[in-house]
Amino acid sequence: MKIGIYGYGNLGRGVECAIMQNPDAELVAVFTRRDPETVKILTPTAKVEKADNVLLYKDKIDVLIICGGSATDLPVMTPALAENFNVIDSFDTHAKIPEHFKNVDKAAKENGNIALISAGWDPGMFSVNRLMASAILPEGKDYTFWGRGVSQGHSDAIRRIEGVLDARQYTVPVEAAMEKVRAGENPELSTREKHTRECFVVAEEGADLERIENEIKTMPNYFADYDTTVTFISMEELKANHNGIPHGGSVIRTGVTGKDKENKEIIEYKLKLDSNPEFTASVILCYARALVRMKERGDTGCKTVFDVAPRDMSALPYEEMLAHLL
Amino acid sequence: MKIGIYGYGNLGRGVECAIMQNPDAELVAVFTRRDPETVKILTPTAKVEKADNVLLYKDKIDVLIICGGSATDLPVMTPALAENFNVIDSFDTHAKIPEHFKNVDKAAKENGNIALISAGWDPGMFSVNRLMASAILPEGKDYTFWGRGVSQGHSDAIRRIEGVLDARQYTVPVEAAMEKVRAGENPELSTREKHTRECFVVAEEGADLERIENEIKTMPNYFADYDTTVTFISMEELKANHNGIPHGGSVIRTGVTGKDKENKEIIEYKLKLDSNPEFTASVILCYARALVRMKERGDTGCKTVFDVAPRDMSALPYEEMLAHLL
Repeated sequence: MKIGIYGYGNLGRGVECAIMQNPDAELVAVFTRRDPETVKILTPTAKVEKADNVLLYKDKIDVLIICGGSATDLPVMTPALAENFNVIDSFDTHAKIPEHFKNVDKAAKENGNIALISAGWDPGMFSVNRLMASAILPEGKDYTFWGRGVSQGHSDAIRRIEGVLDARQYTVPVEAAMEKVRAGENPELSTREKHTRECFVVAEEGADLERIENEIKTMPNYFADYDTTVTFISMEELKANHNGIPHGGSVIRTGVTGKDKENKEIIEYKLKLDSNPEFTASVILCYARALVRMKERGDTGCKTVFDVAPRDMSALPYEEMLAHLL
Repeated sequence: MKIGIYGYGNLGRGVECAIMQNPDAELVAVFTRRDPETVKILTPTAKVEKADNVLLYKDKIDVLIICGGSATDLPVMTPALAENFNVIDSFDTHAKIPEHFKNVDKAAKENGNIALISAGWDPGMFSVNRLMASAILPEGKDYTFWGRGVSQGHSDAIRRIEGVLDARQYTVPVEAAMEKVRAGENPELSTREKHTRECFVVAEEGADLERIENEIKTMPNYFADYDTTVTFISMEELKANHNGIPHGGSVIRTGVTGKDKENKEIIEYKLKLDSNPEFTASVILCYARALVRMKERGDTGCKTVFDVAPRDMSALPYEEMLAHLL
């Protein structure tokens, strides 16, 4: 399958690496809003093009993987590009997914293309597991824990505070809460009881550290509802010890079965990731593969991870799946 | 969907309980090889019928769930019943799945029916997770650990030894091995290093306990390759403390991503089950739902869990999935 990458940040670079690990995928071109001359990619056979030139590749690309931000990029980019390409994105603003779906579906259907939104791990693999587990155990309770991992959004929120030069925010699941869930205790957990937030902040020289710490801890939505710790460190320490983008988490469903609902069943799907964007990209590539196959079977319009049979995600022949994986 | 249960042992009873938890499913009849008068079921509106009368229900059942054993029942039953019904089974002899698939596919296709084999958790949910994880992380290593749980096959093997009245065998994963895998160490693990086997045995009065213990520990395929412990207990203790059918386990894939494959990513799917047959039955019911939908779309022949989109497993409307689970 011939792949285009639209946007070459952390995620776009991850997609390129994932393509290198999958012999059935070929990177045709990277599209960037920057000056193409300044963008160095890893694949010698692929082109770097201006984003504006994407239409020149209309018949040269099977799937265009859109690696933009969910806040402002994807709501515009994905529907627009779905008019001319089969597309896939990792739109992750959960509350706006139905609206985004509708827009992309219309654009794709009207033009005979296929699209898949919100691929990755959450939304993505976590969603698939929430759905399967709730179908298997209709009487039960869902828990999603995130971390320990870097939240880009929360790190950015700290960076916007006056006097802050750089920051990393780690979302940390409360181990004791997870253990209660895994033991089948079905606890009711408040936001504060599920996760803590650890902030590592580089402040400008002479900045009012007390004010910065207070602004972080009281920030509504982001930090106010959590137990938050703030640690001021040097730029050197940030670069030495907080340069990675790890993440992960667990989706747990606890449910009951039996005549008198006397038996507890617990399903957990757990990720531990050194690189959030590279793993997200690896998931996206599987769904790109599935999308090409679904399109070949005549399917069009917007899809999600819920519509994809596991078989279509894998490059293995079906006979091999039956013999070795079933 | 109208369901028939063919075979009313632990699994069949589990399916009946699962139907009671799913309002879109209705139990029409249970088919048994025993005298129907002697079989008491929980569903007042359903019939108990002789297995031989199953054809009378040809147009009254959407899916027939075949709850027989994999050794001798299912290889015959599933292809035969697929000639007249949409069927689903939990065939779990991994090595013979390709052959079973072929036989069921032929019978179902020739008669315009749809079938799904090997539903449950292994094969079943574990298989789905092995497939998805290996697709996402093409360069990696798979581990499956089972237990702590009762192995019916191993318990039966002990019961066949002279002087044994009853027995329970627990398959126990080696915690230290699992921790190495979860830490991303990619260990090479022998059979002995992955699982131990705990046997609780009720012997006849005056039986030669040393001989029994030795016969168990040296039994080829079942125990010889494992560290096995044998504990003799009374029938009372067996009934009091070993009456449940718990099981579970973990499918773990560790893989690498990145330009220089410098990042480790770990995916784990974990089950902790109070009742192995009831959970298996709950999974089967989801795939029965999917099968009815796939048939309505015109699909026929033999399928596996690999062919089923998560969406089709759930009773929820798609809009609700998008809004709340994605």
